Amino acid sequence: MLERLEALRLVDHHCHGVLDRDLGPAEFEALLTEADEVDEAGIELRGSMWDTQAGFAVRRWCAPVLGLPAHASPGAYLARRAELGADEVNRRFLAAAALDVLCVDTGFTPQALLEPPALGRLAGARSYEIVRLERLAEDAVADGVGAAAFAGEVRSRLNAKARSRDVAGCKSIAAYRAGLELAGERPAAADVTAAAGRLLREAERAMAGRSAPPRVSDEVLHRFLVWCSVDEGLPVQFHVGYGDADADLRRGDPLLLTSLLRTVAPTGVPVMLLHNYPFHRQAGYLAQVFPNVFVDAGLATHNLGHRSPALIAELLELAPFGKVLYSSDAFGLAELFHLGALLFRRGLAAFLGSGVRDGAWTGEDAVRVAELMASGNARRAYRLPGT
Amino acid sequence: MLERLEALRLVDHHCHGVLDRDLGPAEFEALLTEADEVDEAGIELRGSMWDTQAGFAVRRWCAPVLGLPAHASPGAYLARRAELGADEVNRRFLAAAALDVLCVDTGFTPQALLEPPALGRLAGARSYEIVRLERLAEDAVADGVGAAAFAGEVRSRLNAKARSRDVAGCKSIAAYRAGLELAGERPAAADVTAAAGRLLREAERAMAGRSAPPRVSDEVLHRFLVWCSVDEGLPVQFHVGYGDADADLRRGDPLLLTSLLRTVAPTGVPVMLLHNYPFHRQAGYLAQVFPNVFVDAGLATHNLGHRSPALIAELLELAPFGKVLYSSDAFGLAELFHLGALLFRRGLAAFLGSGVRDGAWTGEDAVRVAELMASGNARRAYRLPGT
Amino acid sequence: MLERLEALRLVDHHCHGVLDRDLGPAEFEALLTEADEVDEAGIELRGSMWDTQAGFAVRRWCAPVLGLPAHASPGAYLARRAELGADEVNRRFLAAAALDVLCVDTGFTPQALLEPPALGRLAGARSYEIVRLERLAEDAVADGVGAAAFAGEVRSRLNAKARSRDVAGCKSIAAYRAGLELAGERPAAADVTAAAGRLLREAERAMAGRSAPPRVSDEVLHRFLVWCSVDEGLPVQFHVGYGDADADLRRGDPLLLTSLLRTVAPTGVPVMLLHNYPFHRQAGYLAQVFPNVFVDAGLATHNLGHRSPALIAELLELAPFGKVLYSSDAFGLAELFHLGALLFRRGLAAFLGSGVRDGAWTGEDAVRVAELMASGNARRAYRLPGT
Repeated sequence: MLERLEALRLVDHHCHGVLDRDLGPAEFEALLTEADEVDEAGIELRGSMWDTQAGFAVRRWCAPVLGLPAHASPGAYLARRAELGADEVNRRFLAAAALDVLCVDTGFTPQALLEPPALGRLAGARSYEIVRLERLAEDAVADGVGAAAFAGEVRSRLNAKARSRDVAGCKSIAAYRAGLELAGERPAAADVTAAAGRLLREAERAMAGRSAPPRVSDEVLHRFLVWCSVDEGLPVQFHVGYGDADADLRRGDPLLLTSLLRTVAPTGVPVMLLHNYPFHRQAGYLAQVFPNVFVDAGLATHNLGHRSPALIAELLELAPFGKVLYSSDAFGLAELFHLGALLFRRGLAAFLGSGVRDGAWTGEDAVRVAELMASGNARRAYRLPGT
Repeated sequence: MLERLEALRLVDHHCHGVLDRDLGPAEFEALLTEADEVDEAGIELRGSMWDTQAGFAVRRWCAPVLGLPAHASPGAYLARRAELGADEVNRRFLAAAALDVLCVDTGFTPQALLEPPALGRLAGARSYEIVRLERLAEDAVADGVGAAAFAGEVRSRLNAKARSRDVAGCKSIAAYRAGLELAGERPAAADVTAAAGRLLREAERAMAGRSAPPRVSDEVLHRFLVWCSVDEGLPVQFHVGYGDADADLRRGDPLLLTSLLRTVAPTGVPVMLLHNYPFHRQAGYLAQVFPNVFVDAGLATHNLGHRSPALIAELLELAPFGKVLYSSDAFGLAELFHLGALLFRRGLAAFLGSGVRDGAWTGEDAVRVAELMASGNARRAYRLPGT
Repeated sequence: MLERLEALRLVDHHCHGVLDRDLGPAEFEALLTEADEVDEAGIELRGSMWDTQAGFAVRRWCAPVLGLPAHASPGAYLARRAELGADEVNRRFLAAAALDVLCVDTGFTPQALLEPPALGRLAGARSYEIVRLERLAEDAVADGVGAAAFAGEVRSRLNAKARSRDVAGCKSIAAYRAGLELAGERPAAADVTAAAGRLLREAERAMAGRSAPPRVSDEVLHRFLVWCSVDEGLPVQFHVGYGDADADLRRGDPLLLTSLLRTVAPTGVPVMLLHNYPFHRQAGYLAQVFPNVFVDAGLATHNLGHRSPALIAELLELAPFGKVLYSSDAFGLAELFHLGALLFRRGLAAFLGSGVRDGAWTGEDAVRVAELMASGNARRAYRLPGT
C-alpha cells in the first residue's frame, strides 16, 4: 500500500506560505508546533519544542532531505539548514511533498510569506488561492466602505474572486473569534449593516488612537461572510479544533456548526472542516450525515508525528472515504509540507493495508479509496480541472 | 476466545424492525449509515455510502450469508439480495445473528416494519417490546386527552404496558428533541399540566392546518416520561450520541444526564445509555460511578466496521464488565442484526483474547465476563427469565 | 525500555494518604474505583467492582507482592491481605512503587489517613505537602475570621505554607464545586469580601442548625484562591476530568480553564492539570500552547489497567515530553501506589519502545525523555532539590 500511496501526487487543499529567509533557533522552534515563542525564563520551565512528536518527526524524516542522517540533533539540523539556505531548503521540501495542487490560504501573513504562484513553482504544482473571508471584510473596512455599502462591497469583492480561475474557495476563522456556534439562518440585511456599523466605529477609534485596526469577531458578520461564499458557489473551509493559544478550543468544536450545516446542506456548496483534532470523530459524523461536508486532519497530522496513524484511523471511523481530504496546513516552515504529506501517506497506507491484511477490504478497493482521499475527493469538491 | 463467543447466544437489548419488502439501490444505501437519501446531484458530490466502514463490512461479512464471495461488488450484492427476496434475506441474517432475546423499540416506524413477534420468529429468539415514551405521550394527545388528564392517562397507559409480559422497558429520545440536559428533580404536576396544555394547543393548530401532529420536545415532558417509567420499575433506555442529522450530537452527550442520573440512582431502576459514540468514554465513566447505569455501543459497532474493536476497547476502559450490554440498534436492514452481532463478538473476543495473551486476566475470567456482556448483564438488568 | 524505566525512581507529584487499618471486602471494593460503596440490593444490580480494569490489574500485579500467584481470586486476595495486616501491606506496596518523591494532597480526609511523613518513610522517599486551597479557606472560616479579614487571613496562612520546606504546591478542586469555567481576571477585593460574607453567613446558619459546615463553591472564591497560590509562586494543581459521582464531569473539561490559563501564563507559575481523562487530548493541547501548563494521567492510569498504554499514548500526542508528569492519585489503598507506578512505567516503556523499534526516535532520546517524565519535569516545575 505504501508504495502505491507514494506514487500518488496529492491535492493539498489547505496550506499557507513559507518564509523565504533563514531562521534562528527560537524562531524555528516557534514554528514547529502551535506553542508561541517564549522568553528564556519561560523556555527553562517549558523545555524544548524539539521534544515533541513534531520535533522528533522533523529529525526523523526531514534531516535526510537535507542530506543528514535520520535523527540528527536539533543543533546539527539547524546548522545544515542555514548552510543550504532558505531557497534550497524550501525547494527540497516542497518537491519532496509530491503535490499536484496547492490551495493556499493567503489571509494570515504576520510576516512576508511566499505567495501561491511561487509556492506552486517550488512544488511543481498548480496553485490556487483560498480567500480568507474575515480579511476580505477587514480590507473593505480599511478601504473606507460605509456601513450601508458594506454588504454590497463585500459581495462585489468576493464575486471578483469567484470569477478568477486562481481562486478555489473561501475560509472562515470564526473559530478564532466568535466561535463556531453560528446560527442557521441567513442574517437579515439590517443586522449586517448594524454589525458593520459597529466595526466601522471601532475602526475609526483605532485610527484616532493609532492602535491596530479591529478584526471581524461578530457572529453576524462571520455568518454573513459564510453565506456570501455559499451564494457565490465557493466551497467554504472552516478552521475547526486545534490551533494556537489564541483560539478557544472549546468554541472550535465542529458540532457547534450543526445548525448552519443544516441550512447550507440544501445549497450543495461544499463545506470543509479543517484540522478537527481532538474533535475528529465528531467531524467524521458530520461528514457522514451531511452530503456536502468534507473533513481532513491537517495540522494535527504533522503535530502528532509517530501517532498520526491513530488519528487517521479514528477520522475514518464514521467519515465516508469519499469525504476525506488531504491538507498539510503547513505554515512558515517548508518542512511541514513534506511531513504532512509523508505522514498522511504512511498513515493512510497503514490503515488501508491493515484492512487488506485482515480481509476487511480488497487491495483493489484500498487503492481506489486511497486515490479518492489523495486527490479525487478534492478535485470533485472544488471542481478542479483534471477531475 | 472467538470460538467461545461464537457459541454464546446474545441478548440484543435494543433494536428495531426490518423492512419486509425488496429495496432499491438508493434505499439500501440510505439505510446503511445515518446519512439520509439524497438526490442525484447530491450523490455526485457526496460519493457512495458503500465506501464507508459499514459498506465494506456488508460486502465482507454479509455477502457470504447470501452465498456470494466476500467483497462482492455493491451491484452484485443488491442483485443477489433481490433474487433471494426480502423474506429469505431477513430469515438468513436474523438466524445468523444467533440471538436468544430481542428487545424491540417499536416507536419509530416511518414505514411498516416487522413487529417484535415476527422478528422473534425469524431469529428463533424471545422478543420483547421497548416502549417509546414520547410516542406513548403523542398517542395520548392524538386520542384527545385533555391537559388536566394528561399525566394520569400517560401513567395509566404505561402501567398497562408494564403489566405485559412482553414489555421489557422504555426508551427516551430526549436527545433528539430537547437534548439530554434534563433537570434532576421530578417535574411538578402543575408544570406537566402546563406543558401538556402547550402540546395540546399545538396539536389543535396542526389539525386545523392539516399539518403533521406535534412531537414531544419539551424538557418537562421528557423528564416526566422518564419518571413515569422509573415509577413503574421499567428500565429506561436513552438515545445517546451518534444518530442521524436530525439529532444535535452536542446535546446527546451522556454527561448532560448527570443530574438526572443522580436522582434516579437511589430508585435502583436501571438506566441504559445506548450507542454513546463518540462519547463512549464518558458513558463508561457514568456506568462506573452510578450503580444502576448500563452502557452499550450499538449502532456505532456496525458503522465502525473494521474499527469497531477500537470502540469496544475504549468503552471497556472505565465501564465495569458487569455494566456493558450488547445491542445492534439494527433498523430496516436485516444485515445490521448480523453485522452488529458478528462485530460485537469479534471485537470483544479480540479485547479479551489480547488480555489473556498479555497475562492481564485468565482465560476463565475472560469467558465469564464475556458471558456477562453477551447476555448475563441484560438478563439481570431487565430481569429476564432464565437469569 | 522497560528495564530502563524500572530502574528510574519516580516523583509522584499528586497522591493522598492510605488507610492504616484492615479493610472489609465492601470497603476495599469501594476504594478500588470511583464508584461509591452501595448496599446489597445495589450490588446485585451493579455487579462486582473486581470485574473492572482496576480489579483485574490488582489481581494481576498486586497479588504477587503479597506472595500470591498472579490472578488470585478476590477472596484469596482479601484473605491474604488481612493475614499480613495493614502495616505490612502498606509497607510492601509503597516500597514496590520505587518513588523518590511524594507530593501528598492532605485536603481530603473523610477518614484518618497516613500523613505525608509516614508515607514517605514507608516509601523510602522525600514527602511534600500539597495544600488544598478550598480547605485552607474553609478552615479560616471555621476559625471565625470575619468577611473583611478573610482575604488577608487566607493570604497569611498560605504564605506560612509557602515558607515551609515541606510544601510543594497547592491544589484547587473547583472542578468538584463551581466547575472549571473560571474567569481570567483576578477577582476584585470587594467581590472576594462579598463572597466570603456569603460563606460566613452560611457557616453561621450551619452552626445554628448543627449541620455540616459549608464548602467553598463560589467561582469568585475558587479563583481568588488560585491567584493567592500564584502570588506566592506556588504551583497550582487542578483536579480535571475523571473523579467520583460528586464531580460533574462536564464541568471538569480542562478547556474551561482557557481564560484563566491565559492570564496566569505570564506569571510563569506552573499549573498542573491532574487526571484529565477523558479530556486528556484537550489537556495535551493546553500543555503545548501554554508554557507553564503541565499534565498527567493520574487516577485514570490504574483505573484503565490493561488499557492504560492507550491513554499514555494519547496524552503524548500534543503534550510536549517536557510537560508530562507522573502521579498515582492513590487514595486509601496502598495498592494504588504500586499499580500507578507500574502501569506508568510499562505504558511509557511501550510507547517509547515502539517508537524506537519503528525508528521514530533513538534509544538515547527515548531514555532521556523517559527520565524527564519520570522525575525531571516534576523536579524542574516544583523546583525540588536535586534537580
